[in-house]
Amino acid sequence: MLLTIINPNTTESMTTTIGKCASQVTGPGTVVHAVTPAMGPASIESHYDEALAVPGVLAEIAAGEQAGSDGYVIACFGDPGLDAARELARGPVVGIAEAAMRTACYLGRGFSVVTTLGRTAGRARDLAETYGAGRFLRTVRACDIPVLELEDPASDARRVITEECRRAVVEDAADAVVLGCAGMADLAALISAEIGVPVIDGVAAAARTVETLVALGLRTGKLGEFAAPPAKPYTGALSDFQMHRPDIC
Amino acid sequence: MLLTIINPNTTESMTTTIGKCASQVTGPGTVVHAVTPAMGPASIESHYDEALAVPGVLAEIAAGEQAGSDGYVIACFGDPGLDAARELARGPVVGIAEAAMRTACYLGRGFSVVTTLGRTAGRARDLAETYGAGRFLRTVRACDIPVLELEDPASDARRVITEECRRAVVEDAADAVVLGCAGMADLAALISAEIGVPVIDGVAAAARTVETLVALGLRTGKLGEFAAPPAKPYTGALSDFQMHRPDIC
Amino acid sequence: MLLTIINPNTTESMTTTIGKCASQVTGPGTVVHAVTPAMGPASIESHYDEALAVPGVLAEIAAGEQAGSDGYVIACFGDPGLDAARELARGPVVGIAEAAMRTACYLGRGFSVVTTLGRTAGRARDLAETYGAGRFLRTVRACDIPVLELEDPASDARRVITEECRRAVVEDAADAVVLGCAGMADLAALISAEIGVPVIDGVAAAARTVETLVALGLRTGKLGEFAAPPAKPYTGALSDFQMHRPDIC
Amino acid sequence: MLLTIINPNTTESMTTTIGKCASQVTGPGTVVHAVTPAMGPASIESHYDEALAVPGVLAEIAAGEQAGSDGYVIACFGDPGLDAARELARGPVVGIAEAAMRTACYLGRGFSVVTTLGRTAGRARDLAETYGAGRFLRTVRACDIPVLELEDPASDARRVITEECRRAVVEDAADAVVLGCAGMADLAALISAEIGVPVIDGVAAAARTVETLVALGLRTGKLGEFAAPPAKPYTGALSDFQMHRPDIC
Amino acid sequence: MLLTIINPNTTESMTTTIGKCASQVTGPGTVVHAVTPAMGPASIESHYDEALAVPGVLAEIAAGEQAGSDGYVIACFGDPGLDAARELARGPVVGIAEAAMRTACYLGRGFSVVTTLGRTAGRARDLAETYGAGRFLRTVRACDIPVLELEDPASDARRVITEECRRAVVEDAADAVVLGCAGMADLAALISAEIGVPVIDGVAAAARTVETLVALGLRTGKLGEFAAPPAKPYTGALSDFQMHRPDIC
Amino acid sequence: MLLTIINPNTTESMTTTIGKCASQVTGPGTVVHAVTPAMGPASIESHYDEALAVPGVLAEIAAGEQAGSDGYVIACFGDPGLDAARELARGPVVGIAEAAMRTACYLGRGFSVVTTLGRTAGRARDLAETYGAGRFLRTVRACDIPVLELEDPASDARRVITEECRRAVVEDAADAVVLGCAGMADLAALISAEIGVPVIDGVAAAARTVETLVALGLRTGKLGEFAAPPAKPYTGALSDFQMHRPDIC
Repeated sequence: MLLTIINPNTTESMTTTIGKCASQVTGPGTVVHAVTPAMGPASIESHYDEALAVPGVLAEIAAGEQAGSDGYVIACFGDPGLDAARELARGPVVGIAEAAMRTACYLGRGFSVVTTLGRTAGRARDLAETYGAGRFLRTVRACDIPVLELEDPASDARRVITEECRRAVVEDAADAVVLGCAGMADLAALISAEIGVPVIDGVAAAARTVETLVALGLRTGKLGEFAAPPAKPYTGALSDFQMHRPDIC
Repeated sequence: MLLTIINPNTTESMTTTIGKCASQVTGPGTVVHAVTPAMGPASIESHYDEALAVPGVLAEIAAGEQAGSDGYVIACFGDPGLDAARELARGPVVGIAEAAMRTACYLGRGFSVVTTLGRTAGRARDLAETYGAGRFLRTVRACDIPVLELEDPASDARRVITEECRRAVVEDAADAVVLGCAGMADLAALISAEIGVPVIDGVAAAARTVETLVALGLRTGKLGEFAAPPAKPYTGALSDFQMHRPDIC
Repeated sequence: MLLTIINPNTTESMTTTIGKCASQVTGPGTVVHAVTPAMGPASIESHYDEALAVPGVLAEIAAGEQAGSDGYVIACFGDPGLDAARELARGPVVGIAEAAMRTACYLGRGFSVVTTLGRTAGRARDLAETYGAGRFLRTVRACDIPVLELEDPASDARRVITEECRRAVVEDAADAVVLGCAGMADLAALISAEIGVPVIDGVAAAARTVETLVALGLRTGKLGEFAAPPAKPYTGALSDFQMHRPDIC
Repeated sequence: MLLTIINPNTTESMTTTIGKCASQVTGPGTVVHAVTPAMGPASIESHYDEALAVPGVLAEIAAGEQAGSDGYVIACFGDPGLDAARELARGPVVGIAEAAMRTACYLGRGFSVVTTLGRTAGRARDLAETYGAGRFLRTVRACDIPVLELEDPASDARRVITEECRRAVVEDAADAVVLGCAGMADLAALISAEIGVPVIDGVAAAARTVETLVALGLRTGKLGEFAAPPAKPYTGALSDFQMHRPDIC
Repeated sequence: MLLTIINPNTTESMTTTIGKCASQVTGPGTVVHAVTPAMGPASIESHYDEALAVPGVLAEIAAGEQAGSDGYVIACFGDPGLDAARELARGPVVGIAEAAMRTACYLGRGFSVVTTLGRTAGRARDLAETYGAGRFLRTVRACDIPVLELEDPASDARRVITEECRRAVVEDAADAVVLGCAGMADLAALISAEIGVPVIDGVAAAARTVETLVALGLRTGKLGEFAAPPAKPYTGALSDFQMHRPDIC
Repeated sequence: MLLTIINPNTTESMTTTIGKCASQVTGPGTVVHAVTPAMGPASIESHYDEALAVPGVLAEIAAGEQAGSDGYVIACFGDPGLDAARELARGPVVGIAEAAMRTACYLGRGFSVVTTLGRTAGRARDLAETYGAGRFLRTVRACDIPVLELEDPASDARRVITEECRRAVVEDAADAVVLGCAGMADLAALISAEIGVPVIDGVAAAARTVETLVALGLRTGKLGEFAAPPAKPYTGALSDFQMHRPDIC
């Protein structure tokens, strides 16, 4: 099976990390294709960045449909473009926030999210409500680390994140911790070993979840809201998107 | 005061209708500037259309900031790009779905939404939850009319919509009806007269709401989640958006 | 248009303040008539006060109907008698708590209420749920200032309130602050300038909201729960209220 | 123990029925004192009636405090004045809607309410939310019978109500039915025998509930929101209410 | 009337305390039969203990049915086996958590639970949601006292519990406190006297509640979910439970 | 990896079906061990059956711990004993209802459950709330087929279930259907092919989910509510359960 893991930002090194994490957890018959959009922001740290990452994500979905991809992961914790992607793709699409949060719900009664910037906490809480994880969400904790600093080996990001995860256990009585950024994908196991509760990386969780959906023959329901979008004219810098419609669904 | 009313789709005739509706309800000192994005879909009938309407909306916000606009209306019932627009603009931004739904809450205990296509009902219900109107929302009713058919004088769209509004009163016991598409902006008074309960057009409601916010000196809170987005590189077809950042907030 | 702003308590000086605030924010064609009930408590600081303020409010609604008032504001943060007033009045009726809270929802993801006495916090939270603002409400903060002390220039009420508003920003990460008492109506702009986030006065918000409803031709839906109350005998000290029924609606 | 059962409307024959129902279900050491207010509406069929019933209810609470009443029932399904009464009384106060709904929750997973007029359904649903019974409430069903017709032996009210209760079982799969009007107090057992599920009369449920609270030494918590209301001037037709404050609590 | 009070654990001394508390609060015509299961854990301090207490509880329900019991109390704060007991018994069944929480809701706007071990707090919050008391629940506070230490006169359990109750008043602004363990049944009045707000013992609350249900002729609705369980083979150590089915309901 | 799939009822043929379904969807390195409890009911069709299935489930968890099982599935749609099992097991435990419902949430905006007996619908709705799937749940539909009839090839169960699934699509506008009984495990693909939307079998979903949790090194958080249960005496027919405690966790 071919899975496309879309890094919604345009930073290639982050795509590499994400792809590696996804490959490590999927089965031998699964080919992971990690892709970087041709347009959009270098990192996603605001609603503005997130909104403008969506066209690049949808272009990658359209390309994946051409390439015969069986399923997709959107690998940014805001799950940008998820509903639109579900209309466009024939196979299942999973966001890393929804996969991480739902996975955490299997591991206890409450989890906290540890994320990068405080300004993204509102979006995380909003998604928790949307995904039905609001009842399980204890706190969204921010480390005030810019996303791309996670890539910098000289930064003490890992220590700061680990400390915030520890606080989630001690102060929130969280049974589990969700890492709120795809850029933290390689830290989960290390932090879990230090703090003694499960730590969920959304990239791994989402990759396994979509692999499961494909394996079980489960695709997005296409008889209503998520049917292929009706064809119509598109103009301007986005006129290419008129082409990206699937002919069949 | 200068208000920018953004039609998120690229159909100029609809922009004209929307602008006229907004102008009719705002005060003598208010200049309404109705704009059509330079890029995006001709109408918004899917999550895909909605997502791809957002860059055009944000470009108009950025242009409005240059032009000294005091506030903005996003005139599509899915309120595309609302959170991002609030980061980008110094003044307030109001979506027509949120304005219409909150306005309806002042008029009784329950309202129904009458919209175009059934596939958009899920989004409307989702927005009602997000805006805190879920407790007031009775039913989302679809007329199965494509958005642009609303512009066609030969269509019997008006009759079909009126009948669906009447059903909202009789079957849902709705105290008020919200029209779920900016393209219905000129029908509200006519339908209300026929069915005997208030009918809310989101364009008028949003135009007045943003005019009120500006008049009261109320802008989006800018100390947290909705601060101006951090600057960073943008690439590809969207690289222009790197420029659109406000220097101050 | 004639708007009646009802101060539910019997303190004339507060009526004057409220009326001035409402006049300042409404349009040139709008006449604001601020009224004080002929019966009831000097201030509203308990459920008991609030319940006993309602007959006076309803008598003013009835008088307003005789005088041809187009809409009403109930200017106490508990919104006393709102549902009954909506049955009685032909035009729209807006409470200052509902207007303030819904207005705050346009300005960010979360607001806090700063109010007078701690014992009123429960009512404020209850109203937030009722109005669909529960999801946006961060904290209700009390200053432990009796309502009428707000009128006393020698009091340091303004300083205390400003400090509590600042705490709402720092400790609750509120994007906006709602002032939870009509007696604070003239403080909003001053405090906003000091703390850097929007501060909402319910009197101004409600006056503009009801002016908008009237301008848009939107009245309370009258086909169900809010139809004019059925006629029947009233006895005792309240027997006059038998007269106050509208003949038509 | 002395229990005061307050009929919030001024119809003496209904007070007699209510008092008899309460006496039949309370213990031998309990004296039931059923009272009719000296002011207010002959029946409660609107928000307006309900609001104007409250002063009469509070006057009876004040009189009960003088007479040494140990607890109170407010015997109208809208529970008028409940919060204010809790401030005023030293002992516990129970409304028949809250008692009926909470009692129904012990008898299965879902109940429906069968009430008089359709216009009161919104209030019943609102109270269910307020009391935490929203999760258990299936449907509010109206019989379109005016309240005082329940007193008329020639009316077929009983048959109509029984049929609506039966529909609650068949169509809503309700495990129990709550009668939504104090005027139905004597019908519960008869209807239950006919339809085969428990039918709850709020008067009996509330009388037993307040008797239990008194027996267990449980009174309203008086250290916060429900402390005795602060003293202050009252003017006009309600100036007597300035006197009705408890000196101690 | 015969009421069976089931102590779900196997510690006889706790059964004695519970039975005494229930007898003290029920009426002269009520016979309280406090029983200890023949199987199960000595105390209930985990989900595991609670799950394995259920067969013993159900065996006592079955025995009670043979003995003609009119109603039942399940006297452990997790309300183990409540739904199954309602299927099995002809008369009403009440858990002490549901009775305590619903009773607290009559006494103010918010209550806190003070319980034994921190690990049981999740279950208490979960039950509050299930019973519709979530809106009233402030905090679940744990004393970290093992259940059986409550029986030890040399322990300072009472002092520790009282201090935690006091904190509920001061820090949570709770109007009432619920004791979260049947083993605290004899402490409620003492603690209430010390802290000044009502303190609810679930055993007393549940005993009175079930006595009321029986007195009012109210039994579990038996036409749907809570009908007697269908007969079928049972095997192994639990094969006796095949016999415990009621022949009629 | 060794996964233990526990059929909570004692019908061996159903265990065989369940085990086969689980084996078919798990990876080559995964050994599926499907087990039948030594005690309990032949099928689970009531709260009573479900409660009495729990000891057998917990005994299988304890046996699995001895055998080195890495994770567990509880294969009955009521998820009996799930919280207790999570305390007892070192590895993750997943119920088929939670797995099926959460899986359905990835496939659209709304799903319906099609189950056996109408009396189990309340439990299904309750679980949906508990798991955070309440927002996604459209309707629980019952076929009124006893559980064991699903095993009977002569029955027209499959046709009846398929028709009910089709109604879920047409009448509820469900994007996906969840089969509400482990006995339907082999029907999902067939029905999906007939009705055109995804149909989820909880056994397959849960087996894949627990396999994923084990693969990702994610276990139940053990520092709080789900720590191993404290040791204590157990008596009577369940005294063996005193032994089943893990020494370490």
